[in-house]
Amino acid sequence: MPDFAEPLARLITEFKRLPGIGQKSAQRLAFHVLRAKREDAEHLSQAILDVKDKLGLCAVCNNIADGEICQYCSDSNRDPSVVCVVEEPHNIVGIETTRQFEGRYHVLHGALSPLRGVGPDMLKIKGLVERIGQGEVREVIVATNPNVEGEATAVYLARLLKPLGVKVTRIGMGIPVGSDLEFADEVTISKAMEGRREM
Amino acid sequence: MPDFAEPLARLITEFKRLPGIGQKSAQRLAFHVLRAKREDAEHLSQAILDVKDKLGLCAVCNNIADGEICQYCSDSNRDPSVVCVVEEPHNIVGIETTRQFEGRYHVLHGALSPLRGVGPDMLKIKGLVERIGQGEVREVIVATNPNVEGEATAVYLARLLKPLGVKVTRIGMGIPVGSDLEFADEVTISKAMEGRREM
Repeated sequence: MPDFAEPLARLITEFKRLPGIGQKSAQRLAFHVLRAKREDAEHLSQAILDVKDKLGLCAVCNNIADGEICQYCSDSNRDPSVVCVVEEPHNIVGIETTRQFEGRYHVLHGALSPLRGVGPDMLKIKGLVERIGQGEVREVIVATNPNVEGEATAVYLARLLKPLGVKVTRIGMGIPVGSDLEFADEVTISKAMEGRREM
Repeated sequence: MPDFAEPLARLITEFKRLPGIGQKSAQRLAFHVLRAKREDAEHLSQAILDVKDKLGLCAVCNNIADGEICQYCSDSNRDPSVVCVVEEPHNIVGIETTRQFEGRYHVLHGALSPLRGVGPDMLKIKGLVERIGQGEVREVIVATNPNVEGEATAVYLARLLKPLGVKVTRIGMGIPVGSDLEFADEVTISKAMEGRREM
């Protein structure tokens, strides 16, 4: 790797710490910033700090919020009787892009993982139990990831929440729309068979 | 697109202004910053400003420099009699990774483009002529891009500099190493034929 002037080398290193950014992308980004107007660089620089300083977690659902309560929990048009449980705040983005779900959310900030020492106490489950205790919630849709940790979390939540009198459902698993059976692994295909629907 | 809290939406917008970063990548980067330690966010934020504030152009070759003279011009191990002319500072990176070139550089900061109104006066050509006037330069290697603008710039430089008594050469064009003839366009193939070498 050639020598860059120190501030440029440092910016490249910082960009490389971001996910999906390798040496070449980091160089391209750094040279872009170098060519950009100082004003634009300032905006980016400030936006990075503001995200850390001005955002907190919603007191109800633990989603990212710029106030005490996030925009989904404070939206009275959304149905409080259906709560979709996700692992991370960015999972909400994917669900919102469907424009299908009109309920509320609950963010666990992780998934159970005995291997990595993540137990139920380290997830934001207590708040979910409290929300259900208030009696408004009718259904909990568990939208944790379809992997070992997400599945374990889903099973744990089902056992914990069903006795409280709520319906606990799991998002459907199967072949992605637009994909090809050829590319699906056997576990996905067997889930798709299990989850078949009458036409 | 779902609604993000304002600081997060702003950071996503700022990331999207960077080259090669679309909506999805910008979201991933922004959520990464959100999860990162404040210290790490500060380092990135500061590095962006430092690149604008602490770097200038080398007084000799117009490369990026954190002092008055860049590291290549101040390196006495490098041969001052061979000068490689490039369009942009980041082009030097590609040449340096070969570890083959031991001469000096000259950065034009652009290429001639009548269509976009870029004439010779807008490129840093004057300094190059002055360097040659000092008598130390023996060969100028024109490593501008192999496209219309870069080629026009190369032809212009050759006409301008040859009368000053220096050898002006152009980097070789042909089939990229590791590629396949099948994927090469006809102009590249004809350049490769022209540039053939006896074995």
